[in-house]
Amino acid sequence: MRESEAKTMIVAMQDHATEENIQLVIERMVELGFNVHRTTGAVQTILAGVGTPDHFDVAEFKVLAGVHDAYRISSPYKLAGRSFRPEGTKIKFPNGVVVGGEEVVVMAGPCSVESHEQILLSAKQVAAAGGKFLRGGAYKPRSSPYSFQGMGLEGLKLLRDVSNETGLLVITEVMEISQIEVMLPYIDCFQVGARNMQNFNLLRELGHVRKPVLLKRGIAATIEEVLLSAEYILSGGNYDLMLCERGIRTYETYTRNTMDISAIPVLKKLTHLPVMGDPSHGVGIRDLVPPMALASVAAGADGLLMEMHPNPDKAMSDGAQSMYPEQLEKLVAQLRLIAPIVGRKMA
Amino acid sequence: MRESEAKTMIVAMQDHATEENIQLVIERMVELGFNVHRTTGAVQTILAGVGTPDHFDVAEFKVLAGVHDAYRISSPYKLAGRSFRPEGTKIKFPNGVVVGGEEVVVMAGPCSVESHEQILLSAKQVAAAGGKFLRGGAYKPRSSPYSFQGMGLEGLKLLRDVSNETGLLVITEVMEISQIEVMLPYIDCFQVGARNMQNFNLLRELGHVRKPVLLKRGIAATIEEVLLSAEYILSGGNYDLMLCERGIRTYETYTRNTMDISAIPVLKKLTHLPVMGDPSHGVGIRDLVPPMALASVAAGADGLLMEMHPNPDKAMSDGAQSMYPEQLEKLVAQLRLIAPIVGRKMA
Amino acid sequence: MRESEAKTMIVAMQDHATEENIQLVIERMVELGFNVHRTTGAVQTILAGVGTPDHFDVAEFKVLAGVHDAYRISSPYKLAGRSFRPEGTKIKFPNGVVVGGEEVVVMAGPCSVESHEQILLSAKQVAAAGGKFLRGGAYKPRSSPYSFQGMGLEGLKLLRDVSNETGLLVITEVMEISQIEVMLPYIDCFQVGARNMQNFNLLRELGHVRKPVLLKRGIAATIEEVLLSAEYILSGGNYDLMLCERGIRTYETYTRNTMDISAIPVLKKLTHLPVMGDPSHGVGIRDLVPPMALASVAAGADGLLMEMHPNPDKAMSDGAQSMYPEQLEKLVAQLRLIAPIVGRKMA
Amino acid sequence: MRESEAKTMIVAMQDHATEENIQLVIERMVELGFNVHRTTGAVQTILAGVGTPDHFDVAEFKVLAGVHDAYRISSPYKLAGRSFRPEGTKIKFPNGVVVGGEEVVVMAGPCSVESHEQILLSAKQVAAAGGKFLRGGAYKPRSSPYSFQGMGLEGLKLLRDVSNETGLLVITEVMEISQIEVMLPYIDCFQVGARNMQNFNLLRELGHVRKPVLLKRGIAATIEEVLLSAEYILSGGNYDLMLCERGIRTYETYTRNTMDISAIPVLKKLTHLPVMGDPSHGVGIRDLVPPMALASVAAGADGLLMEMHPNPDKAMSDGAQSMYPEQLEKLVAQLRLIAPIVGRKMA
Repeated sequence: MRESEAKTMIVAMQDHATEENIQLVIERMVELGFNVHRTTGAVQTILAGVGTPDHFDVAEFKVLAGVHDAYRISSPYKLAGRSFRPEGTKIKFPNGVVVGGEEVVVMAGPCSVESHEQILLSAKQVAAAGGKFLRGGAYKPRSSPYSFQGMGLEGLKLLRDVSNETGLLVITEVMEISQIEVMLPYIDCFQVGARNMQNFNLLRELGHVRKPVLLKRGIAATIEEVLLSAEYILSGGNYDLMLCERGIRTYETYTRNTMDISAIPVLKKLTHLPVMGDPSHGVGIRDLVPPMALASVAAGADGLLMEMHPNPDKAMSDGAQSMYPEQLEKLVAQLRLIAPIVGRKMA
Repeated sequence: MRESEAKTMIVAMQDHATEENIQLVIERMVELGFNVHRTTGAVQTILAGVGTPDHFDVAEFKVLAGVHDAYRISSPYKLAGRSFRPEGTKIKFPNGVVVGGEEVVVMAGPCSVESHEQILLSAKQVAAAGGKFLRGGAYKPRSSPYSFQGMGLEGLKLLRDVSNETGLLVITEVMEISQIEVMLPYIDCFQVGARNMQNFNLLRELGHVRKPVLLKRGIAATIEEVLLSAEYILSGGNYDLMLCERGIRTYETYTRNTMDISAIPVLKKLTHLPVMGDPSHGVGIRDLVPPMALASVAAGADGLLMEMHPNPDKAMSDGAQSMYPEQLEKLVAQLRLIAPIVGRKMA
Repeated sequence: MRESEAKTMIVAMQDHATEENIQLVIERMVELGFNVHRTTGAVQTILAGVGTPDHFDVAEFKVLAGVHDAYRISSPYKLAGRSFRPEGTKIKFPNGVVVGGEEVVVMAGPCSVESHEQILLSAKQVAAAGGKFLRGGAYKPRSSPYSFQGMGLEGLKLLRDVSNETGLLVITEVMEISQIEVMLPYIDCFQVGARNMQNFNLLRELGHVRKPVLLKRGIAATIEEVLLSAEYILSGGNYDLMLCERGIRTYETYTRNTMDISAIPVLKKLTHLPVMGDPSHGVGIRDLVPPMALASVAAGADGLLMEMHPNPDKAMSDGAQSMYPEQLEKLVAQLRLIAPIVGRKMA
Repeated sequence: MRESEAKTMIVAMQDHATEENIQLVIERMVELGFNVHRTTGAVQTILAGVGTPDHFDVAEFKVLAGVHDAYRISSPYKLAGRSFRPEGTKIKFPNGVVVGGEEVVVMAGPCSVESHEQILLSAKQVAAAGGKFLRGGAYKPRSSPYSFQGMGLEGLKLLRDVSNETGLLVITEVMEISQIEVMLPYIDCFQVGARNMQNFNLLRELGHVRKPVLLKRGIAATIEEVLLSAEYILSGGNYDLMLCERGIRTYETYTRNTMDISAIPVLKKLTHLPVMGDPSHGVGIRDLVPPMALASVAAGADGLLMEMHPNPDKAMSDGAQSMYPEQLEKLVAQLRLIAPIVGRKMA
C-alpha cells in the first residue's frame, strides 16, 4: 500500500510574493515530509509537494504569509477508495444474500419495534413483498427526551425471533459502544444512523467487530466526510461495510430532507463499498417514498432501506414516512422491472 | 374563482397574552379583511382568520406584542395550484408534440450555439437519438463578463434553420424583456433560466406572450417560490407553462448543484403544470447525467432538458456537463424501457 | 409545571374535505389526548387541539387523508424555555467566575494539549490577556482516523496543573460516556462538540453529572434542535448549562463554516441559558476571529470560546484558526470597550 | 493591467495516468494559451499552466480522461480585486458624504414609498437619528404577483422631494434596464437587489451609468460570485460601486435569512470596494436588527442599509423587519460609541 500513502499538495503563492515568504513555505513543506517542486513564473510561483507526510492540513498553508491558496490533491482516505478494490465489495450474509453484487436488496420494516404482534406482522409483510432484511429500531435516537425511546433488549429479541420465523436478516441501529456487545447475538447487520456518522469512537469499535455495518450519511456530511468515516471502520479491519444516502439538510422545507440521489452514482465511482438508498428518511413523506426508491435504483443503488408499518397511522414513531404494506408490494414489483434496465436484478 | 381567493391565517397567542394584546391582533386581522374565530384555552388563545384580504404578510403578525407565532394556511398561489386544473396541463406544439401528457419528451442540444456546422450536427444527433426539441443558447448568462456571451440573433436564426431541417422544435433562453420580440419568430418555447426565476418584470411580460414557456427553478428557490413565479406568467394569461428542476445549491461541492429529484413528484402533486428535469445543470458532470436522467423519469418527470455536444471537449461553454452523442442515444434507449414501468411512454 | 405541559396543534383541512376525513382526524387527536376546537368555514375547516398528550408528531397529521397542513404551536421543549426561568441562568464557578451574569467571559487556549511546555505557555498567555478559562482538547474528534487523536488522560492532568498554576478554570471536550468519570477530577466544565450535539445517550449522562456543561450547536442543527438537546441535559437535573454558536454549514466555502451571529440574540430571547460564541470554529481563519468575536459580543454573547496557540504555525491541529497570543491580547482590550456599550463588562 | 491577466491553472493527473492522457491534457492547455510546467512524480504527474488565455473552464479539465482534479489558481475577477486599488475605493456623494472612507454611513427608510406623508415623516426621522441616505422602494420586486408592487415614478418624485427638504441622499432599487433612465434625475444611488445580482444585462447597463451603485449579494451567491457580478459593473467603467451583505439562505428558518457577518471582513480583504450590511433583510425580525447592525460595524462594515418605518405595524410591505424610529435613534447612538473602537467614526 506504499503508493496510496503518497500525498500531493499544491501551494500557489500570491503574485509577487517575496522570496522570503516562498522560502518559509518550502521549509514548512519539507519539515512535514514533502519533496517540493517549484515553478517560478513571471508573476506567480507554484509549489508542488509530493511525499508521505503522516498528516497535514492545507488550511494551515492557506494562512501563511504570501500564500494565495493551497490545495490537497490526493484523497485523504485510502482503504475506502475505489482503487483499493476496483472490483467492488460484496458483503455475504448467512442465508446467502449478497449486498454489492448483481442483486438489488430490499431492507424494510417499521421505524421502531413496538410489540411482538406488530413486528411479526411487519416481518411477514416484508418477506411477502420480497424484502430480504427486516429493519426496526430497538434503540431510538429522538430529538426530544420526551419521545418514545425504544424497547431496547426486548426489541432485539423480538427482531431475532420473527426474522428466524420469516427467513429475514436483521438490521438495526447501534447508538453507543456499550450496545455493541448486547446486540451481537441478535442481529445480522449494524446500522449507524446519520447523527452518529462522526461518532468516531463508535466507528472505531465497529471496526473491530466481525459483523457487517451500514453507515448512513450525516445530515450535513459531504461525500468526502462519509468516506473518511468509512475509513475509521475499515482501518479497524472490518471490510463488510456499506454506505447509505438518506437525505441531506437544505433550505427546502417541503420535504423532511433533500435526498441527494446523485450521491449514489458519485459514491459508486469513488468507492468500492456498496451504496444503499433510504428514501423514507430522504423525503419523510410516505407517498414520495416509492418514486424516490425507483429513482435510487435507476441511479445505481445496490439496495434500499425503507420504512413500512402494518398500520402507519398508529405507529409510535415516523408514521408519516412509513409505507403501507401494499405500497411496498407494488414498489418491489416495479423495481423488478427497472433493475434489469440498469444491468441488475432484484434479490 | 371566488373560492380560491378565500384565505386562512392562524395566530397563536403566547400563553397568558393579555386581553389587550389579543384585541389588537383581532383588530388588525379584521382591518385586513378577515373574519376571526377565537378559541380561548386555559393558558393559550388561538385566532383563526378566514376571509378574502387582498394581501397580507404573516411575518407582520409574528412580531406583534403577545403573539407566539402566525401561520398562513392557504396557498399563496391560485392559478398554479393542482386544484385549478386537476386533470393536468397539456402543452401542444406545432408539430404535434405534447408536453404534460402520457409521453415523456426529450429536449437536448449544446449549451451554446457556436456555428452552423456545430448546431446542424447537434440537431441531427438529437433527432437521431429520439429527441423532440433542440436546445441551444443564443444569449448566454455568464457569471464572468469575460466569458463567451453567445451569438445573439445569428444564433437564433441558426437554431430555426437546422430545426426546420431536422423536424425538431426550438427551445432557447430569454434573458431580458427586449429579447422577447426578437426571439418570437425563431423559437417554439422560451426558457427562463434559474437566475431569472424571480425577474418578475420578465415573467410578467412572458405572461402576455402566446408561446410556451419553460421556467427553471432558481438555485435557491423553494418549491413554493417556483409556484409563485409561475403565477406571474399564468396571471398574464399564458397557460402554456412548464416547470423544470435543475439542481439547487447546497453545501455539497462534488457536484455543481444538488439535483432535488423529489421536487419532481412534489410539483406533480401541487400543480397541474408539466415538470421537466435538467440533469446537466443538476449535477454538472457528464457521466452523472444519464443516471440522473433515468432517476428523473423514474420519479415522474414529464420530460428532460439535457446538454449534448458533438464534441464536448471543444465546447465553448459547459463542455464538462455535455453528453457525447452516443451517451444520449444509449440513454434514450434506456428511457424507452423505464417509461412504461411508471405508466408513460417516450415521445 | 403543569402549564408548560399544555400543548397546542392546529390541523387545517383541505378545502371541501369530507366530513368523514374530518371525523377521522378529530378521532386521532382525541386519542392522543387533545381537546378539539373546530372552526367550520364555507370552504375550509380548522381544528385546534389543546391538551397534554405525552408526545405527538405533526408529520403524522400532515399525511392523513383530507389534511392540508398541520402545525405544532407550543414549543417542544420545556425546561430550556425562557419562561421557565425568566431572570436567566447564572453559572457559578469555584473561583467566583459567573457565566450568564453581567460579565462577558473569555475562554481560550490551543485546539489540542500537545506538551507541558506548550500548554503552560498557553495558560500564561490566556491569563495575561484576561481570559478566565483555559480550553484545550485532550480527546480529539478528527474527521480522519489518520490525524492526531489527542493526549488523553495525560492531557487532562496537564490542563489541571497549569490551570491551578495560573488561576484559570478548565474546559475541555467530552466525546463519550466512558470519559465522563475520567474527566471529572480534572476539569471545571464539560464541552460537548458540534458532532455530539445529538449524541443523546451522552447528553443524558451529562444530565446526571454535577458539573457545568457547554453544549455546542451542531453543524446543521436548527435553533430548535439545540434547545431540544439542551432539554436532555436539563431533564436529568443538571441546570448549569450554557449553549454555544460555532458556525453552521452553508454553501459558502470561503470560510470553514458560516457563523450565525443572529443565533446569539435569538437564543437569548428563547432560552434562559447563557449563550457563548466560538468564532474560531465559526470561520476557521485566524484573521477573521477578532472581527467575529467583536461582532458576537456586540450582538449579546455572554462569552467567547476561542483558539489561541503560542505558535500556531506549528500547532498539531487547527493551527489555521488559532490566534497569535498578541491577537488575543489586542482583542480583549477592544472587548473591554465594546462590552459597556451593550450593557455588559468583561470578567 | 497586463499582469492581472496572467492566469494559472493546475491539473493533477490520476496516479499512473497514461502518457497519452497526459499529452492530451497538455495539448488542450496549450491550445487555450497556457505555457505548461510539468512535475512528474513516481506515481502522479502535476501540470501547472501559466498564461493569458481569453477564458477557460476548469470543469472541462476535471472530466478529461486520466485527470484527478483541476484547480483555477488566479482569481476570475480583475477589477474588483483588492490589488487593483489597494488603498480602497471612496465614493463621494454630492453633499460631501463619502462611503468607503473613515466614516460609517447609515442609510435608512421604509421598505416602500407609500405616500407623501409617510415618506416625509420617514425622512425627518432618519435625518434626526443621524442617517445620511433615505432608502425606500418605488419599484418593488415581490414574490407574489398579488402583492403591492410599488408607486413607480410617483414614488421617485416623492423620494427626491423629501430628501431635498431634509438634506438626505436617495438610494432606491432598480429592477430593470428601462427604469435606469427614468430614475436618473431623482436618485443619488442605484440599489441592485439580491434577486438581480446575476441579472447580467442590467449590471452591464449600470456599468455605463455615471451614478453610484449598491450591489446586494444574492440569496445563494458565493463571495466569488458577488465579485464577478461587481466585475460586470466595473468593466463598464463605473467604479462608484459598493457591495452589501443582506443574508443568505440556509436551513435555519427562525430568521428570514442567515446574515453572514463574516462576509464583511472577507470582502474587505478581497476587494477595494466599500462593504455595507443590511441587517433588516439579513434577519427579517425587527428586534434582531439592532444587535446585527452593531455586529456588522464591529466586524468592519462601511455602513448600514436598514428599514425604518414611522408606523411599521401599518407598513404596506416588510413591516415585520422595519424598526420603530426610536429604535433607529438608539441604535445610531450606540454605533457612535462602537465605531471608534474599530478605528472608525459615524458620518
